[in-house]
Amino acid sequence: MDLRDVKQGDLVLLGLPIDHNSSFMTGPAMGPQRMREALHCGAANLTSENGHDLGTDTRLKDLGDLHFQDTSTAIMFIEQKAEEIIATGAKLLSIGGDHSVSGPLIRAHSKRYPDLNILHFDAHSDLYDEMQGNRDSHACPFARAMETGRVKRLVQVGIRTLNKHQQEQAEKFGVEIIAMKDWHPDISFDFDGPLYLSIDLDVLDPAFAPGVSHHEPGGMSVRDLINTLHRLDADLIGADIVELNPHRDLVGMTAMVAAKLTKEVSAKFLSE
Amino acid sequence: MDLRDVKQGDLVLLGLPIDHNSSFMTGPAMGPQRMREALHCGAANLTSENGHDLGTDTRLKDLGDLHFQDTSTAIMFIEQKAEEIIATGAKLLSIGGDHSVSGPLIRAHSKRYPDLNILHFDAHSDLYDEMQGNRDSHACPFARAMETGRVKRLVQVGIRTLNKHQQEQAEKFGVEIIAMKDWHPDISFDFDGPLYLSIDLDVLDPAFAPGVSHHEPGGMSVRDLINTLHRLDADLIGADIVELNPHRDLVGMTAMVAAKLTKEVSAKFLSE
Amino acid sequence: MDLRDVKQGDLVLLGLPIDHNSSFMTGPAMGPQRMREALHCGAANLTSENGHDLGTDTRLKDLGDLHFQDTSTAIMFIEQKAEEIIATGAKLLSIGGDHSVSGPLIRAHSKRYPDLNILHFDAHSDLYDEMQGNRDSHACPFARAMETGRVKRLVQVGIRTLNKHQQEQAEKFGVEIIAMKDWHPDISFDFDGPLYLSIDLDVLDPAFAPGVSHHEPGGMSVRDLINTLHRLDADLIGADIVELNPHRDLVGMTAMVAAKLTKEVSAKFLSE
Amino acid sequence: MDLRDVKQGDLVLLGLPIDHNSSFMTGPAMGPQRMREALHCGAANLTSENGHDLGTDTRLKDLGDLHFQDTSTAIMFIEQKAEEIIATGAKLLSIGGDHSVSGPLIRAHSKRYPDLNILHFDAHSDLYDEMQGNRDSHACPFARAMETGRVKRLVQVGIRTLNKHQQEQAEKFGVEIIAMKDWHPDISFDFDGPLYLSIDLDVLDPAFAPGVSHHEPGGMSVRDLINTLHRLDADLIGADIVELNPHRDLVGMTAMVAAKLTKEVSAKFLSE
Amino acid sequence: MDLRDVKQGDLVLLGLPIDHNSSFMTGPAMGPQRMREALHCGAANLTSENGHDLGTDTRLKDLGDLHFQDTSTAIMFIEQKAEEIIATGAKLLSIGGDHSVSGPLIRAHSKRYPDLNILHFDAHSDLYDEMQGNRDSHACPFARAMETGRVKRLVQVGIRTLNKHQQEQAEKFGVEIIAMKDWHPDISFDFDGPLYLSIDLDVLDPAFAPGVSHHEPGGMSVRDLINTLHRLDADLIGADIVELNPHRDLVGMTAMVAAKLTKEVSAKFLSE
Amino acid sequence: MDLRDVKQGDLVLLGLPIDHNSSFMTGPAMGPQRMREALHCGAANLTSENGHDLGTDTRLKDLGDLHFQDTSTAIMFIEQKAEEIIATGAKLLSIGGDHSVSGPLIRAHSKRYPDLNILHFDAHSDLYDEMQGNRDSHACPFARAMETGRVKRLVQVGIRTLNKHQQEQAEKFGVEIIAMKDWHPDISFDFDGPLYLSIDLDVLDPAFAPGVSHHEPGGMSVRDLINTLHRLDADLIGADIVELNPHRDLVGMTAMVAAKLTKEVSAKFLSE
Repeated sequence: MDLRDVKQGDLVLLGLPIDHNSSFMTGPAMGPQRMREALHCGAANLTSENGHDLGTDTRLKDLGDLHFQDTSTAIMFIEQKAEEIIATGAKLLSIGGDHSVSGPLIRAHSKRYPDLNILHFDAHSDLYDEMQGNRDSHACPFARAMETGRVKRLVQVGIRTLNKHQQEQAEKFGVEIIAMKDWHPDISFDFDGPLYLSIDLDVLDPAFAPGVSHHEPGGMSVRDLINTLHRLDADLIGADIVELNPHRDLVGMTAMVAAKLTKEVSAKFLSE
Repeated sequence: MDLRDVKQGDLVLLGLPIDHNSSFMTGPAMGPQRMREALHCGAANLTSENGHDLGTDTRLKDLGDLHFQDTSTAIMFIEQKAEEIIATGAKLLSIGGDHSVSGPLIRAHSKRYPDLNILHFDAHSDLYDEMQGNRDSHACPFARAMETGRVKRLVQVGIRTLNKHQQEQAEKFGVEIIAMKDWHPDISFDFDGPLYLSIDLDVLDPAFAPGVSHHEPGGMSVRDLINTLHRLDADLIGADIVELNPHRDLVGMTAMVAAKLTKEVSAKFLSE
Repeated sequence: MDLRDVKQGDLVLLGLPIDHNSSFMTGPAMGPQRMREALHCGAANLTSENGHDLGTDTRLKDLGDLHFQDTSTAIMFIEQKAEEIIATGAKLLSIGGDHSVSGPLIRAHSKRYPDLNILHFDAHSDLYDEMQGNRDSHACPFARAMETGRVKRLVQVGIRTLNKHQQEQAEKFGVEIIAMKDWHPDISFDFDGPLYLSIDLDVLDPAFAPGVSHHEPGGMSVRDLINTLHRLDADLIGADIVELNPHRDLVGMTAMVAAKLTKEVSAKFLSE
Repeated sequence: MDLRDVKQGDLVLLGLPIDHNSSFMTGPAMGPQRMREALHCGAANLTSENGHDLGTDTRLKDLGDLHFQDTSTAIMFIEQKAEEIIATGAKLLSIGGDHSVSGPLIRAHSKRYPDLNILHFDAHSDLYDEMQGNRDSHACPFARAMETGRVKRLVQVGIRTLNKHQQEQAEKFGVEIIAMKDWHPDISFDFDGPLYLSIDLDVLDPAFAPGVSHHEPGGMSVRDLINTLHRLDADLIGADIVELNPHRDLVGMTAMVAAKLTKEVSAKFLSE
Repeated sequence: MDLRDVKQGDLVLLGLPIDHNSSFMTGPAMGPQRMREALHCGAANLTSENGHDLGTDTRLKDLGDLHFQDTSTAIMFIEQKAEEIIATGAKLLSIGGDHSVSGPLIRAHSKRYPDLNILHFDAHSDLYDEMQGNRDSHACPFARAMETGRVKRLVQVGIRTLNKHQQEQAEKFGVEIIAMKDWHPDISFDFDGPLYLSIDLDVLDPAFAPGVSHHEPGGMSVRDLINTLHRLDADLIGADIVELNPHRDLVGMTAMVAAKLTKEVSAKFLSE
Repeated sequence: MDLRDVKQGDLVLLGLPIDHNSSFMTGPAMGPQRMREALHCGAANLTSENGHDLGTDTRLKDLGDLHFQDTSTAIMFIEQKAEEIIATGAKLLSIGGDHSVSGPLIRAHSKRYPDLNILHFDAHSDLYDEMQGNRDSHACPFARAMETGRVKRLVQVGIRTLNKHQQEQAEKFGVEIIAMKDWHPDISFDFDGPLYLSIDLDVLDPAFAPGVSHHEPGGMSVRDLINTLHRLDADLIGADIVELNPHRDLVGMTAMVAAKLTKEVSAKFLSE
């Protein structure tokens, strides 16, 4: 299946096997493959919790993994491919890969949706101006996103490690942060206009998602995250699910969490 | 200790080391042995949370594991043994094994208690008519139970993956489903008449119970399940705790969860 | 860095690599080293959730690990070293090691603060008079503490396995127990006078902290514990964080939990 | 890529994701996917030890995994597909799946090569007449193979658990067994006519291949097996590599062993 | 089954679930149970490599695990029970537990066989006079054995960490040490008179036996050990297999090694 | 302890916590800390197999870990520090870190010892001209070393994955390669002049050293490597032990292998 099979109203699933912009631990490049393995393994089915059967919905088009020729052009290549996909009128759900992919993905979406809202679930705000000299680091994508000037609101949820530099960045860019310590399962979100959703698996407590590069204890439960997504009433126009790191996922539990979120987010796109 | 030692008012603990009806992954046949190991290991004691000391309560009779001669007759054999045990006036708490054991166990109990209520904690409704041609599959026991015509109510709690076939089965049999997405820690249950309790460990989030065959993220916490059991005010007449799979239980955490539930459920039987 | 560098107003971090008083499983002697590794690894930063940067606060003095010459004098040696440290006017945050360290630590603090309150998070009440003939066992420190006669209140939170002997001990010593089954995330604590804080990592559910010697399912989440600590409004004068067992911490998740708690408790000391 | 792309002189790689004939533990159905992941991951390259670069040899055709509609017809389906592939003049290297695949694979090859030799590396002789009533069990394929009457010699290497029934079967079929206890790294093999090679990963000691269903200690090292394969001078006409079980392969080591053997065996086919 | 069922010519299997004399890491107390689980699990059969079927040999009597009332009398209790068993004319194969059991076991045997030879496989010589003040430590049993004055020869094989104190002890007691660096797979042993065999699983390289308390790399392979046992031509009168530590045996591999050795040693006793 | 404590005849132990030049998986930056933890843990002692007690030899000076300010200057910084250390007349044993450290280490040594011999144990020849655009990659250090023109002989042992580019590099630089397939435990090495030793832990089979970034099955056993080192009769003037990756070292086995090699190599330096 390739881009020619995609049309208006479809949801494209695209794997982004990339981790060279990770600062502490590589591994997320193996993420997309393990997410697909979990999605299709015999231990579960393809029906979401609201009863939508993704196995029979022909609008879900899995284009497989993007193949990167060269790490130096990877970020640009993601942006270009994302533009091509959304130019068809389809929507895009990318599966990571590390969080560096959100920079180019949001840039691509912001061109089509200039008043973009972003809802970002993460333990970290990823607002660094640069990390170890790398402005494409997985610690920087939301600084890059905000610099486009085309993001109306960036709401970050689940944050629990914000140092001084990132606090300053958040203020500079007008980011709305709902820290994990202030979060409550009943919080709901209200957005005016198109919404891009970015889920870093480490927004979950490591108990629920050990297979991530940065263990930051004190996070959400899977239930809380899914319920929040179910309650979300917004014009969802794009999404990514990132930072699955199979090296720490000894019995495949986190891959299954990522696959479950992929199902629930896909159903969110396709049920509306 | 054997059946001759059992009398009216006792609680019989019986291991069912069986997993040939499992559809995705074997392993639960090793469950009963690991649950006993955890129950008696030096890392914990035998007092339940309500202060009942199972170590000194002589009514708790552990008959060990049922020995199966032949997989083809195993389901029938469980039913027959369960009937023999409850014929003594004792109650039965079986430890699995996979969920296929609940079919024969409920059949046996429903003969003695024709207006049986069932409270079933699980990620899956296990209502398949058949799975891979096997009507005794661990995906089917509650279809089998309902077909007896002797079950008054079947209440399923924690369900989070219900495909179309199972929805139809649930409607056909009048099953009451409290999906995990609708569940709340304060829910309580009210039953009129005898109650059979079936706990599939995968009702818990895989974070709490990684040692199960089917990881279905978004489940209950152990605390929530125990509190719900503590609040349960009903005429408990039989129970099973199933689907411990030691192959995924790298440091024995799930065996300890199963042992803890065994203690709390036993105390529930014996404190009343 | 050594004791000569410590002065009034400082917070001393001291490792206690000891586990010969553990009854079921050794391992906590390796705990302090792994906690420091997690604290300083590149996967996180040193800013607490309330924004306090421990990396730049020169009042935090890490004295490294206490070196024990002899197991038979270790308990006495801890008491003596703790007295020396608090004699400087600094406060002490010890990282374990098993829970046997709390006996001598509380004795040392109770001499300086004769009306001591203790807030103790744990799955177990650790009130045994003796365990396997050992009165310094990690099952006994709070019996030892109460016998000083200098503890005003001992409040135990998260307890979920209390046998008859320990119930009797709790009554004898007037211990206030908030069992896990009765606990609620919104509970807050009010203490009059100096407070010593003792955190056994097994107060957390094993899902969140698999790296402990005694898996007692049904515990708190990391979030619940951190939020409780944040809400705590008291005159904190000393603390310990104990029972990290690296043998069961396959991917280092529990070491990171212990490091996170170290950061949050340190910030609690230093922000006030 | 499909069968139409295959021609005389090619080597076809075919995955057989099947494990319903496994007697003790399922899991090998996930094997082919993990072997490919290991084969193509960035931790290694595609050059064999004799310097053959499989990445640039266009004769190697990976047809992906066979898709089974129904477990009851799976064995027959494998035989039929194998016949279709070898009818093109290509050779076939299948990757498992459990060992039940060797029955139909050898039947297919024996029709084209009626004087077939088989070299079989395994901890077990897999000569059971039936296992738990299943004649297609992974414990039976070499009984099935011998019953074709078209196998000239069956040489089994590495066997270390032969009970009375299997000894009788071995005598009945004239199987040549080189038990592990009698094996020596310098043993070499001489075959007259076409040779089919079947490698069960459990011929290796579990130290080298923990990711198999049956741990039988006392096996070969990977080095010994590879050196034996390098020395093998025979007319290799087909091969399978089976019994990778990812459930026990916590850090992917066994998948890498299977991938390495796939490279070495492929080079054996293509270098001659 | 108990002592009354044992008679002349039998081989008694006895579990010794004890580890309080371990110096670095507890865990071996769980060893006997896991060894039995592995011995009887469906992944293997009960036929030894020389074709002896232990499942049908009624002379093999498993007396289960010794139950210790009190750690302070455990060593004495083992000695007494061993004497009772060998007084029947049966032979004894004990499964550990840590190596502290060999002290009392050898004392018991040396009373009946005053010119005892001992063949001891281990990474360590276990000749400490005392360890952390404990003369019953698992680091001391062979000092204790030699002090009986009834041991004719003690041959230690596989040693690879001998400090000065232990070298002096070895000289003092006339111990014959075959260090691992000098060992060769073809070495064979010749004993005149009765032989007691003691196998510490850590004689194996940790690759083969990760489930031990002391990882000492550079050890034997399982194959080498089994072949050496097969070649051993001696009057075997007692044996122990010790130091299985399930805490480090994540997928049960070492339990299977211990079970395999139990089978091979049992067959050695019963085939002669 | 610092450089001022080092003098002629000493052996300096220096940790190099660096992995940003790793191509597939990060992790080795945590290596030095885990090697020290293993070296000093209570499970072993500090006496080498030839009886040299490193614990009492004051010539062994552990300078701790080098602290890198900046990844871009790290390689240069290592070279400079190594020069400073060997300028004292002490010898240097570095513990990694990934293999990129060998480039600057060998450059530093080759200035003092212009006719340097190198003995290099590895699964890979690490002769890439560049990897992903990085000439300091851990895949390149021996290309960098040879380009100094001051290396007389480079002997690589254990190689088992040599692609075309690396074969060409080997020929260009006159590297002597003893591939693993041609290796035999009795091989010994003869060098004329000073010898630098570089041990990449992946020369070992992953069974013995799972904690490395690149699993390349078919390697040496620990015993074989140690015996080879023991037999080595050469003027050893420097050494490194690299590529320990704790992320894959679930029970610490590989850290213990690295610690054991550190002991044996240190004794080699200090016994001569």
